[in-house]
Amino acid sequence: MSDALPFDTALLDKLAEAVVRTGLNVSEGQNVFLTGSAEALPLIRRVAREAYKAGAGIVVPVLSDEDLTRARMELARDEALDAAPAWLYQGVAQAFEDNWARCHIAADNPMALADQDPARVARAARANSKAYKPAMAKIANFEINWSIAAYPGRAWAEQVFPDLDADAAQAALAQAIFKASRVDVEDPVAAWAEHNVELARRRDWLNAQRFDALHFRSEGTDLTVGLADGHLWAGGAAEAKNGIVCNPNMPTEEVFTTPHKMRVSGRARASKPLAYQGTLIDGIEVVFEDGRITEARASRGEQAFLNLLDTDEGARRLGEVALVPHASPISQSGVLFYNTLFDENAACHIALGNCYTECLEDGGALTGDALAARGGNESLVHVDWMIGAKDTEIDGIAADGTRVPVFRGGNWAD
Amino acid sequence: MSDALPFDTALLDKLAEAVVRTGLNVSEGQNVFLTGSAEALPLIRRVAREAYKAGAGIVVPVLSDEDLTRARMELARDEALDAAPAWLYQGVAQAFEDNWARCHIAADNPMALADQDPARVARAARANSKAYKPAMAKIANFEINWSIAAYPGRAWAEQVFPDLDADAAQAALAQAIFKASRVDVEDPVAAWAEHNVELARRRDWLNAQRFDALHFRSEGTDLTVGLADGHLWAGGAAEAKNGIVCNPNMPTEEVFTTPHKMRVSGRARASKPLAYQGTLIDGIEVVFEDGRITEARASRGEQAFLNLLDTDEGARRLGEVALVPHASPISQSGVLFYNTLFDENAACHIALGNCYTECLEDGGALTGDALAARGGNESLVHVDWMIGAKDTEIDGIAADGTRVPVFRGGNWAD
Repeated sequence: MSDALPFDTALLDKLAEAVVRTGLNVSEGQNVFLTGSAEALPLIRRVAREAYKAGAGIVVPVLSDEDLTRARMELARDEALDAAPAWLYQGVAQAFEDNWARCHIAADNPMALADQDPARVARAARANSKAYKPAMAKIANFEINWSIAAYPGRAWAEQVFPDLDADAAQAALAQAIFKASRVDVEDPVAAWAEHNVELARRRDWLNAQRFDALHFRSEGTDLTVGLADGHLWAGGAAEAKNGIVCNPNMPTEEVFTTPHKMRVSGRARASKPLAYQGTLIDGIEVVFEDGRITEARASRGEQAFLNLLDTDEGARRLGEVALVPHASPISQSGVLFYNTLFDENAACHIALGNCYTECLEDGGALTGDALAARGGNESLVHVDWMIGAKDTEIDGIAADGTRVPVFRGGNWAD
Repeated sequence: MSDALPFDTALLDKLAEAVVRTGLNVSEGQNVFLTGSAEALPLIRRVAREAYKAGAGIVVPVLSDEDLTRARMELARDEALDAAPAWLYQGVAQAFEDNWARCHIAADNPMALADQDPARVARAARANSKAYKPAMAKIANFEINWSIAAYPGRAWAEQVFPDLDADAAQAALAQAIFKASRVDVEDPVAAWAEHNVELARRRDWLNAQRFDALHFRSEGTDLTVGLADGHLWAGGAAEAKNGIVCNPNMPTEEVFTTPHKMRVSGRARASKPLAYQGTLIDGIEVVFEDGRITEARASRGEQAFLNLLDTDEGARRLGEVALVPHASPISQSGVLFYNTLFDENAACHIALGNCYTECLEDGGALTGDALAARGGNESLVHVDWMIGAKDTEIDGIAADGTRVPVFRGGNWAD
């Protein structure tokens, strides 16, 4: 394996080890489904080697390529955008059924499709989400151990560091990823164990409070987010239904739960831009009434945002609410990654669309009316966007109306 | 799309166009399953673009990587070598069921696994072939249009041209591929149409003869190959069962048919080395009795060859016999490609293993006893190896024993 990369590949080795040992926690004989763009092969290869060292059965890659995606947007006929590889996604669902672990390495340029027709991008995305639903449901229901980590793709790096040349930008993004992913230390696996203890402490405190709702206030935001009946807070390491404790996101700084799809009201302003399907959406402002977005605008990429809301009925309602202090290392780095895996860990956020049933007591098997009765939302999409800022104040509201300070001045109140 | 490649990418454009228009002949709205190693992306991207221009629905890539394959051979535990992605291959079979076209771009280093334990390589290959069988059967039965073409991978190029530096070797292999694939001309699609007419003329002559057997003689070879009952000769463009006329191999110089699995006798010596699963097998000599190989040796890679023969009962019997004149352009180039797609088109060859039911009258639905009754062979493998040389003489033997000269001095007798 030879790489000519403008950054320290010893840290790539450490990241691969952390992904396999802590992120996935691959079990003896378990097979691994490994996705990512071909550009990320330097990390994908290392993850595969670490997985085999950990006793994995077979690691099966399905690699993507930005140019192939772009070629379709540029050249495919309109009606051809409704095509999707249902056979592949049904296969992936079967793999999860057969207890395969899932690993994804994010490396794509968040702006890859910025110059494409948003209506065409949305049409293709909708067909893809629909076909992917059986597999996605198993991830959303946390049936198997899975993890997403990142590799510093060059086009992505140039987006994040536009003033640097390509090599310097890739090196800077690599450093930011290694730091945020807590692998720039002597023993990343131990550092992650410690970090997971701290996230568990926050999670357990929130679960003990049994809040009925959270009230967010910051400049442009005054939003009350009701929580689903029997909601559970999650954060950091968690046990999948196959019994394996994994860290689904590397990095992660959030504790999160399932909001009540009918009990969200007020207004929210995004505190950071959102990169969605290759388009930058900035200056989002929305109004919620009875859980549903009734007004929406954006100062940039508005059409892409409106298309997202029109995906299905559930795309206008919340599927997640997450708390991240402004003091989080990713927030303090000041780097805007244009990638939700990182940016959501720099600020409190909400997600439009599908909820995580793992964040509901006995929620695993719930769908349709039974899920809706608890306040759980269903949708083809799940899109996080950031509302937390340095002035964010959050109160927890108990069923009797009592208020408990949760965040003050952007950080945990305690 | 930017490439820094040491050869003329205009010919890569022409190859992509020939693959899509002539090789696959993608039909309006048809989806395409596109495989190959990530290294071949410069051609894979061009094939995808040409496919979209031709009206394809969606082109879905599943890319491989030699290092990932090698990592498994080096690191996976022995029992883990029995794992295979059945869910992926069942998906691929479903894709063919749904009329997806199949395109493969070959670029791999034929020696990639030469330093690995042949028993481990064979164990993994066997598990993979078994899982792949449902999809492979649909290719073998020619249910959909498919095509294989080649891209000059660097490690492959260094194997073919060991005396050149990496760039020069890749350029030399590129030139050899473009020439053999008939795209180094003004209008490759027209050149292929002409070539297909010539192959059809040979095919039709052989079909009119209704030979009972062929008798091959050359140095080290004296082999009588009985032909299956109701065998059909094929070559060049052919119509798949979905009604689409395609060229499954680019290049192709052969006319071929299905031998009788019980009626092959005599001895055969390979005239070229065979690269099989990353191992070079040279100096093959075998003895057939009643269709079955009863003695086998090789001067290099013998264990890999013996493992191949032990795959299953059908791996010791023939599934194909093919005629290629010594005057073929690939033979005349003098290049040994270490890749069957090319080397089989430089010489007459036989294939161990599974037969093509398309080469039997009304053979499409035949399996098991019904297929065996006609002489058709079944196996998990299909491996071609070359027996043709400059001194090859072939007689066609009619049912009444009459002999007709087919090849003299390595070339067509007429």
